[in-house]
This record gives sequence, structure tokens and C-alpha cells, in this order.
Amino acid sequence: MPDGTPETTRDALVIFTPSGKRGRFAVGTPVLTAARQLGVDLDSVCGGRGICSKCQITPGYGEFPKHGLTVAADALSEWNAVEDRYKRIRGLIEGRRLGCQARILRDVVIDVPPESQVHRQVIRKSAAQRDIAMDPATRTFYVEVAEPDMHEPSGDLQRLRDALRQQWQIDGVEIDLPLLRHLQPVLRKGDWKVTVAVHREHRGPPRITGLWPGFFEGRICGLAIDLGSTTIAAHLCDLADGAVLASSGLMNPQIRFGEDLMSRVSYAMMNPGGAAEMTRAVREAIDSLARSIADEAKVDPRHILEVTFVMNPVMHHLLLGIDPVELGQAPFALATGESLSLAAADLGLVSIGEAARVYVLPLIAGHVGADCAAVALSEEPDKSDDLVLIVDVGTNAEILLGNRSRVLACSSPTGPAFEGAQISSGQRAAPGAIERVEIDPVTKEPRFRVIGCDLWSTDPGFAAATAATGVTGICGSGIIEVIAEMRLAGLLDAGGLIGSAEQTGSPRCIPEGRTHAYLLHDGSADNGPVITVTQGDIRAIQLAKSALYAGARLLMDEMGADRVDRVVLAGAFGAHISPRHALVLGMIPDVPLDRVFSAGNAAGTGARIALLNVASRAAIEAGVRRIHKVETAIEPRFQEHFVAANAIPHATDPFPNLRALVTLPEVSFNVRPGPDSEGGGRRRRRG
Amino acid sequence: MPDGTPETTRDALVIFTPSGKRGRFAVGTPVLTAARQLGVDLDSVCGGRGICSKCQITPGYGEFPKHGLTVAADALSEWNAVEDRYKRIRGLIEGRRLGCQARILRDVVIDVPPESQVHRQVIRKSAAQRDIAMDPATRTFYVEVAEPDMHEPSGDLQRLRDALRQQWQIDGVEIDLPLLRHLQPVLRKGDWKVTVAVHREHRGPPRITGLWPGFFEGRICGLAIDLGSTTIAAHLCDLADGAVLASSGLMNPQIRFGEDLMSRVSYAMMNPGGAAEMTRAVREAIDSLARSIADEAKVDPRHILEVTFVMNPVMHHLLLGIDPVELGQAPFALATGESLSLAAADLGLVSIGEAARVYVLPLIAGHVGADCAAVALSEEPDKSDDLVLIVDVGTNAEILLGNRSRVLACSSPTGPAFEGAQISSGQRAAPGAIERVEIDPVTKEPRFRVIGCDLWSTDPGFAAATAATGVTGICGSGIIEVIAEMRLAGLLDAGGLIGSAEQTGSPRCIPEGRTHAYLLHDGSADNGPVITVTQGDIRAIQLAKSALYAGARLLMDEMGADRVDRVVLAGAFGAHISPRHALVLGMIPDVPLDRVFSAGNAAGTGARIALLNVASRAAIEAGVRRIHKVETAIEPRFQEHFVAANAIPHATDPFPNLRALVTLPEVSFNVRPGPDSEGGGRRRRRG
Repeated sequence: MPDGTPETTRDALVIFTPSGKRGRFAVGTPVLTAARQLGVDLDSVCGGRGICSKCQITPGYGEFPKHGLTVAADALSEWNAVEDRYKRIRGLIEGRRLGCQARILRDVVIDVPPESQVHRQVIRKSAAQRDIAMDPATRTFYVEVAEPDMHEPSGDLQRLRDALRQQWQIDGVEIDLPLLRHLQPVLRKGDWKVTVAVHREHRGPPRITGLWPGFFEGRICGLAIDLGSTTIAAHLCDLADGAVLASSGLMNPQIRFGEDLMSRVSYAMMNPGGAAEMTRAVREAIDSLARSIADEAKVDPRHILEVTFVMNPVMHHLLLGIDPVELGQAPFALATGESLSLAAADLGLVSIGEAARVYVLPLIAGHVGADCAAVALSEEPDKSDDLVLIVDVGTNAEILLGNRSRVLACSSPTGPAFEGAQISSGQRAAPGAIERVEIDPVTKEPRFRVIGCDLWSTDPGFAAATAATGVTGICGSGIIEVIAEMRLAGLLDAGGLIGSAEQTGSPRCIPEGRTHAYLLHDGSADNGPVITVTQGDIRAIQLAKSALYAGARLLMDEMGADRVDRVVLAGAFGAHISPRHALVLGMIPDVPLDRVFSAGNAAGTGARIALLNVASRAAIEAGVRRIHKVETAIEPRFQEHFVAANAIPHATDPFPNLRALVTLPEVSFNVRPGPDSEGGGRRRRRG
Repeated sequence: MPDGTPETTRDALVIFTPSGKRGRFAVGTPVLTAARQLGVDLDSVCGGRGICSKCQITPGYGEFPKHGLTVAADALSEWNAVEDRYKRIRGLIEGRRLGCQARILRDVVIDVPPESQVHRQVIRKSAAQRDIAMDPATRTFYVEVAEPDMHEPSGDLQRLRDALRQQWQIDGVEIDLPLLRHLQPVLRKGDWKVTVAVHREHRGPPRITGLWPGFFEGRICGLAIDLGSTTIAAHLCDLADGAVLASSGLMNPQIRFGEDLMSRVSYAMMNPGGAAEMTRAVREAIDSLARSIADEAKVDPRHILEVTFVMNPVMHHLLLGIDPVELGQAPFALATGESLSLAAADLGLVSIGEAARVYVLPLIAGHVGADCAAVALSEEPDKSDDLVLIVDVGTNAEILLGNRSRVLACSSPTGPAFEGAQISSGQRAAPGAIERVEIDPVTKEPRFRVIGCDLWSTDPGFAAATAATGVTGICGSGIIEVIAEMRLAGLLDAGGLIGSAEQTGSPRCIPEGRTHAYLLHDGSADNGPVITVTQGDIRAIQLAKSALYAGARLLMDEMGADRVDRVVLAGAFGAHISPRHALVLGMIPDVPLDRVFSAGNAAGTGARIALLNVASRAAIEAGVRRIHKVETAIEPRFQEHFVAANAIPHATDPFPNLRALVTLPEVSFNVRPGPDSEGGGRRRRRG
């Protein structure tokens, strides 16, 4: 502003909402220009050429007492031909203007709607979940490139670099060979106007990862992948607005080399080339998952320009092509635990963008993976005022305990029982699987619900409603419930023994070798399975839940805490488990029932946060360095806790909250099972 | 040194030669430590552990009047067990000590022999060539890595990084996935002691490119590759001392897609996938060349950790997998001309080190390649006091003209005639090819020499000596000589016409259609070829040499010079050409004969300089930006010069130096050849 002389006709005040940023600008300044100079978050891909419409704004007219301002109807320049054409062809919400076309004439209040903000929030569906602030590593930019000049020879890439520097202040971009191949034809096809996708991370140079002639109208996408031992889950997200376009999953094909992590490590140790074989299998599966999820969302897989991965250390090493043998033995040394930024092509992801980038979240320790880091990113224990225990149950359980002052992590070898494996009638969660169980404490008669049907088994019409799938087995959450219900119904004692028909008064307690089993469902009349809960099933779940509890308890010891304030159950399993039954079983420390939360697939959410918000990558890298790792395998107290946690509920700590919630029958069935009986109980019987 | 009190027994003066660096050190300081602190160029791979012996030094004893010093016999600590063991097992030159073992006790003069200097000079064989100062991007470092600790979990890579930072002050090294795969087994095999090769360039992070358990005794190597349209030439160099371990060449397999650059560009334009086909062919050839050259030098090809490339723009684009179509038409736009630093694997070089790096020298313009940049790097016109013209003759001629104040460059389309193509009896340089010719000016009888035999054709025993190969044709340098000799013998007039037998008085001038040919050799009696120089051959060479001269002349115009001080002939052809004959032909501007030099394969030398001296990479990148490019294709004066240069010698400029050297017969054979005769003359005749 010139030297003190008030020249009210020469500039005007602009106030942007919701940011509140304000400034005076010369009359005639485009709104987009003013926004940029004030650092207002107003999107633009075309750089103000009236092509992209990303800079839509809503001018406010009339009285703004809060700002002490009255905005005149002619505060902005008149609706112009570019806006007219845009509205006619693409449509524009009433009251909206294009920020690059509307010029400031008088004092004005300008609202930037969420869709026009680069850093808008992605609102998540559940109240328990936090929003994601959009700040993607990859964004598109429209540029006009100088044509080649024989008298001043310079490469097309150099002129594109110059354009990016001059038009977008992006300096020193690099480009990988596969994309460089397309540069010349794309520039000519677009008549020297192109849209480039530029990837800018918290480290390394900016990179061109996509290239289209003219203004690119399509979406650019990213994949957030949670690579589990059993399933590979992926979310396909729009990198501009963060929308989840599709979510899809696939069995991890490595299962054929071993159900759990350690059997895959063994496979690699015993078979020359075994690790490479598993690497190939998982890479091909991920590549095909990328194709199918893009297909589902009707997106060109080539427009997937970024992928983030979360996974446990064994999956991590196998994906990268590193033999996981060291992870199978003390001291469980990782080849590398730091985050990685790679070309997707280096991981054999050939169906997506040729120059797509991969970000692999950091690992925490040899047993505590990037999946756990992703849970920490999603659930933020380090920002919790109360002491929160976060449990991500998979084949291994990842456990985090902490608050603002300190976060601890460990991994506990729960085995696959919680996923329905090693259970006589166990199965994966799929239509027909029993997922909810109630047992009447008086009659000892059960009722249950299966996945895919809202009726209870005792409701009329259940048989008809489940005719298509039948009742096929019990999934992980179902097995937790049935065992807890058996305990509550007095069919099971605190030591985990199933009583006989005589002891329990229920004819459903049938002999099974030298022990007993509880008959949950007899489908033999319809050629269906006879579904029982055997003594072996109880033992398998006892081992798994003891490992989980012992891990949590070890972290509490380390923290010097004898109780936690809050429990968060993460993972697909955590989302389906009934907190009440988990407490009865003694899987988790005793807390009030309303202090148990489900975070859904927190690891997957962490992958999605890392995908959509580049600042979160640096944050989790720093966060992981601050997490204190506890190694369960070398901690003698783990074994002590493990043994003490065997009882149902555990015998380790008092459980006042549980006692207030339920009555635990004082039963005891002192029939010691014979040494061979459990094995027999593991086999599934059919009628 | 403590507060002013002279404590002569506490420290000692050390003077290093040849650097002259000096300093005082506490008694007991190892010589290596003193050298490092003073910045003396004393090599060490093991970091002072007495393993590598790279830090050998020669202490001087007695009087050093120049330094005013008398060195006592006990100036260094006694010969120790490590040195003893080293000498016993590996041998150590008398008088040498290991710098890491010998400790400074009294004032001493220490000589660092050339072999112990990292930055030693590689002495080149010819006096005309400059030495190369060793400063390789890739060096080996021996490190001791901390073992993993379950209580402080960290990846093996993180601990290796820590070791490199602590032991070698190398921070933030990166490692590519293929090498990361080997990290864990190598660390364990070496019992946590490893040798790593680290690549540090003038940009980008340092990278681990090699990894060996324990102390690596072998050589690490680099390949300098001159990728020509016709031949691929490679030098295999030791990256520690710069020695050329082997040199080898291979035909460029792209020849089957087109003899010259433009026919390859056409092939790419006319055949879908044609560019990719040529890319594949040349990459495979280079990979196999790497294997065979390593084999020749008895080096493991996996120990080749770096490759530098120089090449013309079309070869450049095809190697990188970029369609060269834009290089075939104005404005001859490059996809990119800047230097490139790549993973060798990205170019399909799979036989060399898995993490080997490639450096591609910058291009100058669409027609002026990295080969020309390499010539500039080798011949340094920008450091020349006099005005030097550098000509690199291949299928295209790359021409540089300049001095300290300014350097110009252009490319001139000479075509393949200088390489023996398009010549009726032309052939590549190979045993049996005529390379030297003399014609008696009186008898008009020729004598010649062939490659592989030191005798002249008129010497007794010539037939026997060449029986194995025969006389097969004329190579490039031979055709220059025979045409110049024909001109000197009066068989050819200034316009390029061959006289008849009557006009010249030589029965060797035989009719050939409506023109004449000169019979150089009749091998028909032995079933060999009849070798003639036809009117068509003369025309082909006239076109080629006119293009070359016109290019040089254009640069002289641009420089405002009517003469040059010095001519450097580069390239394989330049090495074999006779300066006298080149002057007679009018290929190059008129200079005194002793101001014409051959630089040998200057492009290959440039590739080798870039390989061995990393600072040269930044230098040539900056140098290329300063070179002014002249585009012959759009310069009308090029065409004028081209026409005027047709005469033998050219009719453009006076040639006092040539006139002082030879007498040019004033003959004129005014028989205009018919329109169809030249074509006939191009075909090779056999007896």
C-alpha cells in the first residue's frame, strides 16, 4: 500500500472463510491470486486458466457484522464468458464463481467450500474414527510447455521442468525412464499443454508420476494395502478428494506355503528359492488385486499412482524379496525397519501407473510390524490423555499401550485360533458361519446367528433363510461367544473343562474321547455338519487368549499400571467381537464395558492416512522411533502371565467390572482329560 | 597444544610429501590419523585396522635441509606384529610402513607413494593425452557393524548406516532392493565385518552398490562405454587405481535395422515396436559385452559397479528406450539432454553388479551427442589458448571449435563413406583391408599396405605374408589416401574427375560406364577381388568431406575466424587417417602439418574420465551448457560451404600450408559423366 495516503478506490479488503485469512488487494486481482498470496487453501490444477474448475468459491453479499463489513453486489467482477461456458457445459452450483475468473472490485467475503480445499477433511463414517486431513503426496498440475527451438536446443524434459518451476514453483522434478518414454508423444498430442502428476514426499526429489496430453479430466488414485498373513485388503482412494472408490480383499496366496508366519519362515528355510516363490506369489496377487479393484471402481488401473503398504515384518520382508529367515529366530533382526519409498515397478506392480510410487510404513521391531505402526497412526495412543490398550488381533496380536507420556508395543503369538483355524468346526468369516451365540443359563439350550442372515436360529423361518448357505461352521467371533456363553451357562469351569451331561444337566454335553464336547448344532438331518465345541477347541482358544492377555499384561507391568482406562479392539476380528464375551473369556484386561471400543481395520485406516496425508509419513516415522518395544519372547514374565491367564476368566488380576456385569457360575469339573483326547477333539465330525 | 608451555616431548612435527602438508601431533599418533587430520591424500579401505595395506607410506630419515629437519631413526614407532604379518603374507616394499600402524614419536618426513593416494594420476600412454586424476564415485569401505540386540531392536541396515556414519562419516546411504536382499547373510557370513562399495555422485544420496563379507580382496571395476552407431567400444577399468584391465568392442547389433542413424530412425517410424526392438538389441549386446570383457580381464562381472556411457542422441534415446522419431525431423527435439544417473538394471544390464550405477553424459543438442560432450571433456577446447578445431569422424562428424573464451559445436552428416560404406571396394577396417596407399607421380603405379601386414604390396614376400587374409578391399583411411594420391599423381582433377588412360597416360585408368576407374589391385588370378576406385567412390568421398569441411567452416564463420591454429582428429578413423592426405583432400582447414594431431578415441577417453573422476561429471555438465550449438540443417551458409568444398582440395579458402607441402598437378578432365554411370560404379566388381 502506498505511503499512508488512503486510496480506497485502489484496493479492497478480502476476507476468506472458513480460514479467516484476510488482506487488501489491488482492484482487479483475481480471487485465486489473492488466495494464493494469503496462503488460503484454494485448489487449482490448471493454474488459473479457467479449465479445471477446482477453484470454485462462494462470494458472500450483504452484512457481515462479525467482520464489520457490508459487501456490495458488485464487489466482484461480472460473471464472464469462461464461467458461462463452464456452467453451460459442466454445471456450476448457484452462487458459485470460478476463483480464477472473478476479480476483486470492492471489499468482499469469500467462502472456500470444502470441495475447493486441497487440504479438506475426509469425514469418516463412524464417530469413533477421526477424520483425515487431505494432503496427498501426489497432485496433478496443468502446465503449458515451451516448444522446442532449434536455435536454443534443449530437451523436452528441460522445458517441462522450466514450466513446472515457473508456473507451479516446483523445482528439480525427476522422472523415471518408463514415463520419460511417453514425454515426447504426450507433449505433441497435447499441443504443448499437459497435465502432470507430481509426487512430493517428505524426502527425496519431486517426481513426475503421471503424464497426460491437455487437461486431464480423470481421477488419479491411490491404493492403501493392508498385507496380512491371511488376507490382503485394499482401499482404492481418489487422491484429490480422499473418497474410497472401492474396497476389496484377496486371500494371501502364500497360505499354500504355510498357514501362519512361522510356517512360512520355515518354508523359506527348508526350500531353496522358497522365499522367492512366496515373494512372487504375493506380488502377483497384489497386482491382480489392483486390477480388480480398479475394475470395480471403473478406474483405469494406470491411474493408480501411489500405493501404501502396512504389514507385519515377515510379510514386509517377503514382499520386498528379502529372505525372512532371521525373523524366525532370536534376536529377530530385521533387514531394515525404516520406511521405504520405492518405485511400484520394483515390487512387480506392473498393472498400475508405470511410474507409480510405493510407500512402506516403518516397522517397529522384528515382531512388531508396520501394521502396528499403522494402528498407532490411526488410533494415536501417543495423543491419548487416558491409558489406552490397543489390540490388533490377527494370527499374531499386535498390542500397544500408552498415553501422551509413553507408548509401548509388543507382539504376541496368539496363533490362528481366533481366526477359526485349529478349531474343530472353525471356519473363516463367510456366509453360513456362526457369528453370534447365546446359551440359556437355565435350559443350556443355544441359539445362534449366522453371517448373512439376521434371524436367530430359534426364530421361525431361520431354516428357509439360511437354506442357500446352510450352517457351515463357527467363525472367530462365534467361537469367542460360544465359549464365553458356555462359561456363563455353567457348562465350562474356570479351568476350561467342559462338564458331562450328568455334571451340567445338559444332553448337549456329549462324550468326545475321554473329554466332552458341547453340541451347538446338528445339521445331519439335512446332510449338514454336526457342529460341536470340543475340549480341544477350548484349549486352543485358551492358548490364544492367554497369549493375548499376557502380552497386554507385560506392557502394563512395563508401564507400572495395574489397570487400563480404555481398550480398543482393532482389526477385522476386533470389529466383530463382542466386548462382553471378550471380557468373560479374559482376553483383555478388566474395564467397564463402555470403555471397550472397536476401531475396525485400524491398520488399513493407517495405510489410508499415510496414502492421503503425506505429513503423516514423517509423523509415524518419528512416532515409531518413540515407541518402546517389548520383546515377549525373551521376557520371563511373559511366560508367567501366560500360564496365569489360562483360566476363564484369567486368574491374574481381579475383575470388578466383569463381576458387576455378569455372574460367573462356580462350577468345577475335575475330570482330567487323557493325553490323547484333545487331538481327537480337533477333528471335525460330520453326522 | 597446552597453554604456551613448550612441551617438546609431547608432540612432533610431521611433514608429508609430495603434498607438503605439515602439522604437529601428539606423540603416539598413527601416521594415518595425522594424514587424515591434515587432509593428506592417503588411502585406506579398512579404516586403520591393518587389514587393507592401502595406507603404505615411506618415512624419510636423515637430513632434510629443505624442511630444516633432521629425522631420527626412531622417529616412528617400531615395526610391529601387524606389519610383520602383513609383510610375511602379502609382501611390503623395503622401507615402507603401514600408516595405520606406524606411530609418530619424533619430527618426521613421510612420503605418500602414488599407489597410496586415492587421487593419484592415471598416466596415459601418449604424450598428446592428458592424465586422469583418480576421484572415483565408487569406493570401498570396510566397516564393523554392531550386532542386533533384542532389547534395542533396529534393522541390520540401520546398524550398517550407523557404522558408515561413525567409521567413515558417510551419512544417509541408500540401498536398492536387489542388494538389500543380501545384507543379512553377508553381515552374518562376515561376522559383522563387511566391505561395502559406496557410490557418491555430485547429486543424489550416497548409495551402497556392493557388499562383501569381511575384507574384500578383489577389484571393483567400472566400464566406460562409447556406444557408436556402428561399434560399441568398452574399457574395463579398476576403480581403485584407474588401470584399464581390458578394452573390447562389438558391432552394434542395431546395424541390422539400418546402417546409419537416419535409417534407424526410419525403422522406428515405419515399424510399430521397432524402437523397442532396437533398444532390446543394444541392451543385450552391451550386457554380453560386459560379460566378455570381464571374462577377458578375469574379473567377476558382478564386480562391475559403475558404467559410463557416451553416445550420439539417437543411440542415447534408443538405449534409454525412447523412440527417436523426433530426432529425425526438425526441430530435432531431444526427450532429454541432461546427464542421467540410473540403476544399471533399468537399462537391462543384468550381468554386472546388481546395484551397479550408470552415468550417461549430457547431450549437447538434437544432433550433437554425449560423444561430442565426451570429446570436449577429453580434449578440453575450453582450456585451449589457441583456436582448436576438433573433429570426431564417424557416420556423423561431431565438430568442436574453440578456445578459452568460447566453444562452438555442430554435427555434420558425413554419412558412412569414411567408414568404407558406399564405396565400391570399401570395407570396414579388418585384416586384409588396404589402409595405406602411395602412387608414383611418374609411373602412376600404386603400392599399398593392408591391415595385419607390415610389408608394402611391392615388397618381396607380400603375397605370402597376406596369403591368409588376401587383399579384400579398402578401409576408410585407405580410401582417403588413394584418392589424395590419385590427385597428387594427376589421375584426378580438382573437380574430382578421374582421367582416362589417354588423358593420364596410365593403363590403370580403365573405362567404367561413361566414366573411369583406377585399378588399384587385380586379385582375380588368385580368385581375389579386382579393387578399383570408381568415379562413384570419388563422388561419395567428395560428399562426405564437403560436409565435414562445411561444418568446420560454419563454426569458423560463427567464431569470426578464417583459420584455426590446430586440428585434432578424434575417433578410431581420426587415429588412422594420414594428416597429409586429409589436407590434400580438403577435409580439414589448411594448417601446418605439424599442427594436426590425433587424439585417438577421444569420446571413449571422455567416458573413461567420467568413470574415474566424479568431479568431471559436474564439469562436463556445466561445460555443455556453455557450448554454443550451431544447427547445420537450418543454416543456409552450410549449403554454400558444402558446394564450395566439393573440389579437391576445397575451393573455399586459400591453402598456403598445403601448397608448401605438395605440388598439386594442374589437370582437368572435362568429360561429364552420364547420369547413370555413378550408380554402376558403386557396385563392387569381382574378377
